[in-house]
Amino acid sequence: MENPGYSSGFDGLHHPSDDDDDEMVDIAGATLDFSATDDVPPLSSGGYDEYSAGSSSRAAGMNGSGPTKLVDPLEDPLPGVGTYEDFNTIDWVREKSKDRDRHREITNKSRESTVALLHSVSDAFSGWLLMLLVGLMAGALAGGIDIAAHWMTDLKEGVCLIGFWFNHEHCCWTSNETTFQERDRCPQWKSWAELIAGTAQGPFAYIVNYLMYIFWALLFSFLAVTLVRAFAPYACGSGIPEIKTILSGFIIRGYLGKWTLIIKTITLVLAVSSGLSLGKEGPLVHVACCCANILCHLFTKYRKNEAKRREVLSAAAAVGVSVAFGAPIGGVLFSLEEVSYYFPLKTLWRSFFAALVAAFTLRSINPFGNSRLVLFYVEFHAPWHLVELAPFILLGIFGGLWGTLFIKANIAWCRTRKTTRLGHYPVIEVLLVTAVTALLAFPNSYTRMSGAELISELFNDCSLLDSSQLCGYKQPVNTSETGVDNSLADRPAGPGLCTALWQLALALIFKILITVITFGMKVPSGLFIPSMAVGAIAGRLLGVGMEQLAYYNHDWLLFRGWCSPGADCITPGLYAMVGAAACLGGVTRMTVSLVVIMFELTGGLEYIVPLMAATMTSKWVADAFGREGIYEAHIRLNGYPFLEPKEEFEHSSLAVDVMRPRRGDPALAVLTQDSMTVGEVETLVESTHYSGFPVVISQESQRLVGFVLRRDLLISIDNARKRQDGIVSASLVVFTEHCPAQPPEAPPPLRLRGIMDLSPFTVTDHTPMDITVDIFRKLGLRQCLVTHNGRLLGIITKKDILKHMAQISNRDPDSILFN
Amino acid sequence: MENPGYSSGFDGLHHPSDDDDDEMVDIAGATLDFSATDDVPPLSSGGYDEYSAGSSSRAAGMNGSGPTKLVDPLEDPLPGVGTYEDFNTIDWVREKSKDRDRHREITNKSRESTVALLHSVSDAFSGWLLMLLVGLMAGALAGGIDIAAHWMTDLKEGVCLIGFWFNHEHCCWTSNETTFQERDRCPQWKSWAELIAGTAQGPFAYIVNYLMYIFWALLFSFLAVTLVRAFAPYACGSGIPEIKTILSGFIIRGYLGKWTLIIKTITLVLAVSSGLSLGKEGPLVHVACCCANILCHLFTKYRKNEAKRREVLSAAAAVGVSVAFGAPIGGVLFSLEEVSYYFPLKTLWRSFFAALVAAFTLRSINPFGNSRLVLFYVEFHAPWHLVELAPFILLGIFGGLWGTLFIKANIAWCRTRKTTRLGHYPVIEVLLVTAVTALLAFPNSYTRMSGAELISELFNDCSLLDSSQLCGYKQPVNTSETGVDNSLADRPAGPGLCTALWQLALALIFKILITVITFGMKVPSGLFIPSMAVGAIAGRLLGVGMEQLAYYNHDWLLFRGWCSPGADCITPGLYAMVGAAACLGGVTRMTVSLVVIMFELTGGLEYIVPLMAATMTSKWVADAFGREGIYEAHIRLNGYPFLEPKEEFEHSSLAVDVMRPRRGDPALAVLTQDSMTVGEVETLVESTHYSGFPVVISQESQRLVGFVLRRDLLISIDNARKRQDGIVSASLVVFTEHCPAQPPEAPPPLRLRGIMDLSPFTVTDHTPMDITVDIFRKLGLRQCLVTHNGRLLGIITKKDILKHMAQISNRDPDSILFN
Repeated sequence: MENPGYSSGFDGLHHPSDDDDDEMVDIAGATLDFSATDDVPPLSSGGYDEYSAGSSSRAAGMNGSGPTKLVDPLEDPLPGVGTYEDFNTIDWVREKSKDRDRHREITNKSRESTVALLHSVSDAFSGWLLMLLVGLMAGALAGGIDIAAHWMTDLKEGVCLIGFWFNHEHCCWTSNETTFQERDRCPQWKSWAELIAGTAQGPFAYIVNYLMYIFWALLFSFLAVTLVRAFAPYACGSGIPEIKTILSGFIIRGYLGKWTLIIKTITLVLAVSSGLSLGKEGPLVHVACCCANILCHLFTKYRKNEAKRREVLSAAAAVGVSVAFGAPIGGVLFSLEEVSYYFPLKTLWRSFFAALVAAFTLRSINPFGNSRLVLFYVEFHAPWHLVELAPFILLGIFGGLWGTLFIKANIAWCRTRKTTRLGHYPVIEVLLVTAVTALLAFPNSYTRMSGAELISELFNDCSLLDSSQLCGYKQPVNTSETGVDNSLADRPAGPGLCTALWQLALALIFKILITVITFGMKVPSGLFIPSMAVGAIAGRLLGVGMEQLAYYNHDWLLFRGWCSPGADCITPGLYAMVGAAACLGGVTRMTVSLVVIMFELTGGLEYIVPLMAATMTSKWVADAFGREGIYEAHIRLNGYPFLEPKEEFEHSSLAVDVMRPRRGDPALAVLTQDSMTVGEVETLVESTHYSGFPVVISQESQRLVGFVLRRDLLISIDNARKRQDGIVSASLVVFTEHCPAQPPEAPPPLRLRGIMDLSPFTVTDHTPMDITVDIFRKLGLRQCLVTHNGRLLGIITKKDILKHMAQISNRDPDSILFN
Repeated sequence: MENPGYSSGFDGLHHPSDDDDDEMVDIAGATLDFSATDDVPPLSSGGYDEYSAGSSSRAAGMNGSGPTKLVDPLEDPLPGVGTYEDFNTIDWVREKSKDRDRHREITNKSRESTVALLHSVSDAFSGWLLMLLVGLMAGALAGGIDIAAHWMTDLKEGVCLIGFWFNHEHCCWTSNETTFQERDRCPQWKSWAELIAGTAQGPFAYIVNYLMYIFWALLFSFLAVTLVRAFAPYACGSGIPEIKTILSGFIIRGYLGKWTLIIKTITLVLAVSSGLSLGKEGPLVHVACCCANILCHLFTKYRKNEAKRREVLSAAAAVGVSVAFGAPIGGVLFSLEEVSYYFPLKTLWRSFFAALVAAFTLRSINPFGNSRLVLFYVEFHAPWHLVELAPFILLGIFGGLWGTLFIKANIAWCRTRKTTRLGHYPVIEVLLVTAVTALLAFPNSYTRMSGAELISELFNDCSLLDSSQLCGYKQPVNTSETGVDNSLADRPAGPGLCTALWQLALALIFKILITVITFGMKVPSGLFIPSMAVGAIAGRLLGVGMEQLAYYNHDWLLFRGWCSPGADCITPGLYAMVGAAACLGGVTRMTVSLVVIMFELTGGLEYIVPLMAATMTSKWVADAFGREGIYEAHIRLNGYPFLEPKEEFEHSSLAVDVMRPRRGDPALAVLTQDSMTVGEVETLVESTHYSGFPVVISQESQRLVGFVLRRDLLISIDNARKRQDGIVSASLVVFTEHCPAQPPEAPPPLRLRGIMDLSPFTVTDHTPMDITVDIFRKLGLRQCLVTHNGRLLGIITKKDILKHMAQISNRDPDSILFN
């Protein structure tokens, strides 16, 4: 029962998804409540029963309107048949088959009339139109978030007198100062000390600025956590673990709804501006997926089909990364490598299209004011040398170790939060962490600036004009002699750089510690930027170290030949970039998409090899300590039913070892095709909690005919009892095409062949589990029947497989919570 | 029987794959011949029996060594069990399960000793090592091919006096001439006219050069076609259709063998140098796959497992495109989008790694002498305007039409070649086409230059210094006034450009016609470059047209605002690039990979939108006329058993409509689990030609127990009769775990449970075919059994599905040739 933290989101019972967020399944599908499904007894301890209670109460509320809906003759004759309950897994095969039926129907009709033909064409292009809309909406939202976050981050330091809505940079655009240093101090921009104390210098001004910084940080984070708790508990966190689970076929109703979108957008700006050690990249993926899910409602094709909708969501994940980094190709690969479960080629094309549209929308909004598409634009001048692969691989090892450490520490912390009373005070937790962050971050200029700014500065290659502390090298004495060419050459570190190095080292320790406790709080929080910041700091430190080593020892065998005095041979910015990639790779275990994102930042193939070396090393090192990335770890922590597609199933068990009923358990509950009465069926259904029942010829032969879902069965019987004459408890339930001969006085039989799945998936009892797992993964099954020599023996559900896998790796099989 | 052209490769009976090219399956697997398999009667008309005869004779030759192998006690007890015949389809599930078993064994052993642990580690890294080797080898070969082709192309025009092995450019590197025009005419480089006639000018010199050009072209193409016919008939064509088929699980032994590699590499250089309208990109993919297949022999893991080997081949396809265009990311996406069938994430990472290694190996060799990685490096200066999307979409429409036209014409031509006597004279055909190409190409400078050079020139943005005819604009009169900024502005066309336009128009018509008959000849031939050339010419023509239109009508509403006089607003080179992408897209139906390849050429995200617009339009237009790309069309022409993963199965048939036996046919041939004798089994096997037999409990109950492959069954019975005492025709064949009670005088039973597949795939008779096709595709099945209420009813093979699909689309179902 590890779920209290997650489900405590339901504490605020007035949360709007009760009536509004019907995005994940049709409301028509919720007319009846079958919350106890499959072979799990309703969980009754920990925070989970809070959820169960909430769910029942909601369901009860809907039950009231149920009967009226059921008798509406204009509705589909059996509303609800073929839909899913919340927190359940979809059946991909059924959904895709449904979509093909729909498509076939439209194609057939299109030959009949011009209108139908137009409908068919518009249906074919609706996918592209939807992608266009998703790209435009997500791009616009990302632009808005960037602008707002930029302004509010600057608000912590001061305000613009010519208009409080200008950020620092914008405020000083009209300034007459020409040098870079002076530009930042334009008279229109006033720090809080100048406004309140009237002075910009001295200890008093410093203290005023310090206090104002902490005040704004606390205010922003308080607003963020309050909004999340009050309106959209699903808006917290990065959202990527949940989106991965949803894309694998799980239903979390309201997770991608409009309230989540609105609140996540607002609170993301607040959380980023509060100076907490978190990024906006993961949440942007969530925001893009919300946009896609909401826009799906415009098109019947996507509204009514869970499988088709997931294709759109896969593309939306690509859009999210595309706008986060300005890297459309990297975004598509991220969706393919990290997020998506089922990624057909059609989705590849559409994702790419949507990612491009979003990137260009963002560029038209131009939030960074430099008409660059990318978040960190870098240009390096010097090529790298083969010897440098050694430090790059070192950075990879560092990244891998950091990844392992971070995942272990963060999961331990999140588990503590869930299992102790800590989880009951999310607002206080957020305020405390914000206060600590602000207190420690302000004195150090590298932690005071935002994560993105820090990374940008660390990636930067020093030029002579650069005023940054990081470029505080000693000026060459004989500039006139050596000429301009020398301006970029390696130089000895000056006092400015030494100070910067100390500050960076402190920032590194601070970032490492604070990120562990920040990720997982009840505010929107991504960890791309903090991870990259850690890596970039480490990389820059190593880079400057290498540079100084080469400068003072250029006659070493190692440096001889490629690093002569006066040459520009080592680029510390490149080390920062490689370090950032390594650390992000260690945490998320991305490889190709990460390299491609970095490639899109620099635009040069030159630096792919260092990046590749570092990310690969990082992945290998991290995998050696544990194969899970941070997202998989959080999925497991929350007990989602996610069947990891990357990991091979290595154990040699057979289907018979995993299926229910186990040896010694009572036999499987089955229906017979033509010998059970309505009453018997109802008794059987009510006495069990399985989500479906196999139909066999007779109890003796156990030869399989089909499979009926509990939900469909109950709806149909309920409907028949209400609307069909003569259906009583003694009526025969018939799944065959022809009714068996009955005595004349018997009530008319209830024919249910229509709701039976005539093609249930079966495997034999001797099928190795690795093959079974492969079938579940590739076909997206929910359950599979097990036969022996043509007789039905048992059933395997996705949950059985996950429990079995948990057992094999010595974990608690009851940690898998949902169906 | 459409296969004579293809199988006529077997005419040259001394072709080396008879004894050497055992790459696709172990030679041990070929100890017995079961060439008539599955439910196809041996084809007996057309060219196919040539193949059958050749295959039988080869098999007979191997039969001689068969018995000695079978009694070797050191061998695997039953050599051949679990391997495949040539021209058969593999069972992915079985192969992957085998690999997991192997992996599990190694992992288990690794806990026992240090040696085993090292073995386990080396096994884990062998995949990466293999990728490294593939990258290095393919990169080196591609570099060699580039250098050799460059030199031999120039050899057609003249020779370098300071060393005949220098190409034109290399020869003139040491020249003292400084201007670009003069550099080409350095004294060290002599045209053939200068050497033979002593003069470089005048009609006589022209005729000498003309004749020498034709002579060299004929010589190169004669050598190419002779080598292909004599040593490696599989080396002809682009190879991509066959590689797609092989990757989908088909076995073509020798197709990726060392002879094919050697001959393809040599003849590719010859074919490219001969000036034929063909490219080296497709064949490079084939070359890379050959490298991968050969290198697989170094690692047991890949040598022995067909599924693992196909993962490596997928990566090799990426390597091929990576070295062809210098676009590693594009290469990976090409493999993913166009070539591969089964592309797990692991393959994604490895493909990317191999593609990078290959690209950097190629760059170290530096065949273009400009240290650029890419084939066509372009840099544009002007941005594009939204209005220009209209001409870009026009180019897309042109590309789509060209793609449709090309595919239809080329397939018609190839079919003619197969069905008429034309196919019997491949050498004469090649010589004729070469002669026509050379005759028509020489007078026009745009057709005389190689395809790659032409594209390079068409992509190029004119600068003031450019001496090319395409940049023959009228110089601005008042240069001094308008200044340097004006140098790149739109200018009126001069006489040079007008000539160039006429020549380009003629070149366009020539290229369109000649490419149709060139692709498919018995020489290595890719169609990336010819397709791109057609598109680039069309694009450049349109671009120049737009430019002149804008120049003379800059006051039109259309151009007002963004195309003022003196501004550089239209880049004809960009139009050429968009046109090239559109035409290539129309022919191959690539989209994302094509755009990414083009993006890697220019390195700027700016031009992705025009490219995307054009390729999408091109795909839509071409798809409207027929959904097949050129590779799929060739696969169908050759009758390969390829189940297209991109197309949805739209028909509403059920499994029962497709399965064998059909209604009215005799019942399915089955084995019973414990009531048939060896003699009965042998009679059954010999009287049918199925590739496998279901095992049932009894003929009466028809309840399925398992599935036995014909090949395994025959090998086992044969082996048992030779080595096991008392196995006679009357012995009982037992598939159960426990032998049934037998009278005491009965001979000992033959236990064959070991070779039976205990987990055959089954679907019910009511399963819709769209779901069945999905299962076949996703799991890579070879056959699937059909049951009804637990009783065995029939069987569906991949071939049955393909025949059914052919029938639905009104094609001849007998065009599917292989299993």
